[in-house]
Amino acid sequence: MNSFNFISPTRLCFGNDSVAMLSELLKGKYSKIMLHYGSERIKKNGLYDEVIAQLNILNVDYIELSGVEPNPKYSLVKKGIDIAKRENVDFVLAIGGGSVIDSAKAIAAGAVYDGELWDAFMGKTSIEDALPLGVILTYPATGSESSMGTVVTNEDGDLKRSIDDDLLRPVFAIMNPELTLSLPYEHTMAGITDIISHILERYFTQTENVDLTDNLSEAAIRTVMRNARILNEDLNDYNARAEIMISGTIAHNGVLGLGREDDWASHRIGHEITGLYGTTHGVTLAIIFPAWMKYVYKENTKRFARFAVEVFNIDRNNKNDEELAKAGIAAFEDFLVEIGMPTRLSEADIPVDQFALMAEKCCGNGYVGSFRKLYREDVEKIYELAK
Amino acid sequence: MNSFNFISPTRLCFGNDSVAMLSELLKGKYSKIMLHYGSERIKKNGLYDEVIAQLNILNVDYIELSGVEPNPKYSLVKKGIDIAKRENVDFVLAIGGGSVIDSAKAIAAGAVYDGELWDAFMGKTSIEDALPLGVILTYPATGSESSMGTVVTNEDGDLKRSIDDDLLRPVFAIMNPELTLSLPYEHTMAGITDIISHILERYFTQTENVDLTDNLSEAAIRTVMRNARILNEDLNDYNARAEIMISGTIAHNGVLGLGREDDWASHRIGHEITGLYGTTHGVTLAIIFPAWMKYVYKENTKRFARFAVEVFNIDRNNKNDEELAKAGIAAFEDFLVEIGMPTRLSEADIPVDQFALMAEKCCGNGYVGSFRKLYREDVEKIYELAK
Repeated sequence: MNSFNFISPTRLCFGNDSVAMLSELLKGKYSKIMLHYGSERIKKNGLYDEVIAQLNILNVDYIELSGVEPNPKYSLVKKGIDIAKRENVDFVLAIGGGSVIDSAKAIAAGAVYDGELWDAFMGKTSIEDALPLGVILTYPATGSESSMGTVVTNEDGDLKRSIDDDLLRPVFAIMNPELTLSLPYEHTMAGITDIISHILERYFTQTENVDLTDNLSEAAIRTVMRNARILNEDLNDYNARAEIMISGTIAHNGVLGLGREDDWASHRIGHEITGLYGTTHGVTLAIIFPAWMKYVYKENTKRFARFAVEVFNIDRNNKNDEELAKAGIAAFEDFLVEIGMPTRLSEADIPVDQFALMAEKCCGNGYVGSFRKLYREDVEKIYELAK
Repeated sequence: MNSFNFISPTRLCFGNDSVAMLSELLKGKYSKIMLHYGSERIKKNGLYDEVIAQLNILNVDYIELSGVEPNPKYSLVKKGIDIAKRENVDFVLAIGGGSVIDSAKAIAAGAVYDGELWDAFMGKTSIEDALPLGVILTYPATGSESSMGTVVTNEDGDLKRSIDDDLLRPVFAIMNPELTLSLPYEHTMAGITDIISHILERYFTQTENVDLTDNLSEAAIRTVMRNARILNEDLNDYNARAEIMISGTIAHNGVLGLGREDDWASHRIGHEITGLYGTTHGVTLAIIFPAWMKYVYKENTKRFARFAVEVFNIDRNNKNDEELAKAGIAAFEDFLVEIGMPTRLSEADIPVDQFALMAEKCCGNGYVGSFRKLYREDVEKIYELAK
C-alpha cells in the first residue's frame, strides 16, 4: 500500500426527502448564490420550483446560469466566471448531473482566479482557492458530486481536460433517487458504465498489498452490476436506483483508491473520442475499456485473473491465469452488451479514420496511464482494437 | 435504504512517513495546542520526540496532559477541560489509541461547554460546539480517529457512556502502521475484535435494501479476518498491520452504515462489564457478540444465513437458513478463539454474580439495540449465555 493523504469532506444528504434540506444547508452562510443547471428539464419535473421555494425560506439573493450541455464547454464556464466575479457570487449551486457539476466546479475555481483558468486545465498552473459549491444530483454517473475533479471541453481545439484538486470537492451533495427514476434507458446504462469504470481505473493497479480496497472494489462492482441488471428489467425500481446513486458516489470519492496508484488511461483515451465527435462519456468507456483490457492485461495477468474470479465468479478449475484473465475481459464485455452499451466504435457510428490524430491529442509526446504506460502508438492500437 | 445525512471530513494521512506531515497540518491555524496522551510509551519509542520536533518547526505554544488510561476516566477529562479553558487552548492533539482520542474529544467538547459535560454523556443535553482536534493513531481498534463518538467512564457510578456528534470528528488522523508493529498480541487481537464488531453492529440490521453497504461490509470483515490470521502468525507483518489500520477507520467512520439502522446492543452490554471490572473493550465484545447472536438471530434468520455464506463461505447446500445461521455464529466464535480471544466470561475471569445489576445499569427501564430491542431481562439472559 502506498502512503496517502485523503479527504472527502462532502456532506451526503440522501433520500427522497433530501431536497428539503437545502435551506438548512445554506442558512446564514452565503449572500449571493449562483444556480447553475442545464436544460428546462428541472423546471418540468418540479425540482426547480422546489429549489426556489427553499431559497425563498432564506430570503437569499441568487442569480441563474443555465445552458450547460453534456461534455460542458469552457465558453460557458468563462461566462459563468465573468458573472460570478461581477455579481460577487459566494456560492455555486449545481443542479444536474456530472456536466453541470463539473461546469460549476470550474466556475467556482475561476471566480477566485486571476489569470486564464484553462492554464490550470492544461496543467500549466494549479488553483489555490475556489468558491464553495453544493450539488443537487439528478444523474448518477460521474461521481463529481463528491469528487475532486472537473472535466471540461475547450471548443478551441476540441480539448477535453481536467483539474483535480480537493478544493473542488463540493460542500454538500443532495441525492434524491426519485429524481433519477425518469432517466431514459441509454442514459441510465451509460451512467452505470461510468460508475464501474471509476472503480476499474483504481482497481487495475500495479500497487501491491491493497487488500481492503481490492475487496471493497470488487464488492462495489458486483453491487453495481446486480442493480444494473434490475434496472435493465425495470427502470422504475427505486431501490436499484438508490443503490446505483450511492454507488456512484463511493466509486469516485477516492476511498476505493486509497493507497493505490490509479490508471485513468481509458478515460483519457475515451475523452479524445468525445472531444472530436461529442460522444457520450459512458459510451466511450464501454468501447475503450474492453479494448484497453485486451491490450494491457499481460502486464499483470494475475490481477486480471482475480478480476475474473472475484467479480464474475468464473471458476478457477482447470484454467491458468491467462485463460482466466481473458474470460474475465470477455465477461465484462458481455455485461456491457447485456445492458445495451455499444462496445465497438462502429456500433456507436464513430468514424475510424482519425486514430493517429486522436492518439496524438491524447498523449502528445508523453504517455497516459500507469498500469501500463501507453504512448501514442499504443493508444492508436487500442483504438484499432475498439473498431 | 433509509434516508441519511452523512459527513466524514477527517483528513487521513497514512503511511510510514505520515508523522512528518504534522507541522504542515497545523501550520498557521492554531496558537495553543494541548498534547494529550497516555503513558511514557510514546517517549520510549521516539514518537514524542518526533511530535515535538514538528511543533518546534512551527514555533507554536503547547501544553501537555498525559495519564489517559484504558477506558478513559471522566476525572481526567474534567482536569483537561479546566486546563484548556484556563490556558485558552484552541486545538487538542491526541497521541495514542481510542482511549486517548476519546478523552481528547471530551476535552475538546468540554472546553467550549459552560455546564457539566457529563450531562451530555447522559443524554440530558447535547453539545453545540467543540475545539478542533487531531489524532496521531498508535492503536487501530476503536475507529475514533475519524468517528463521531467518544466513550468515557465516570468513576462516580462506574458508568461508561458516549456522546455521538459530528462536531467530534477529528480534523486529521495521522496513521503510521509502523507505530503498531510493537503492539503485543493480546492488544492486537482485542483491537481487531473491536474493528469487526463495529462492522457487525451496522451489518446486523432490519433495514431492507442495503445492497452496497451489505457487500462492502462483508468485504471489509473478510479483509480484517484474513489479515488477523496473518498477524496471528507474525505480528511484524507491516502489510497486514497497514490493512488492519485502514480497516479500523473504514469500519467506524460511518460509510458502512449509510442508510441502515444500526444496533450497538453488544457494545452497550459489554460496556457494563468494563464499567464494573475494567475489562478491555475488545474482550467484552468477543464475549458478548457471540452470545448476542445466539439470542437474537431468529429475528432475521435470513440475514444471519447470509452472514454465514458471504463472510465464512459456508456452503448453502442441504442447509436451511436456521442451520446456516447457527453455522455462521459458530464460525465467528471459532475465529475469535483462533485469534486467542476469550469468548466466555469465565475464560476472562469475570465474575458471573452481578448480571442483574449489570443488566439494570445497561437498560434502566428502557432497552438497548434495534435489531431486536433488548430489555433488562433479555440482557440478563445474554450475560447467562456468555458465562
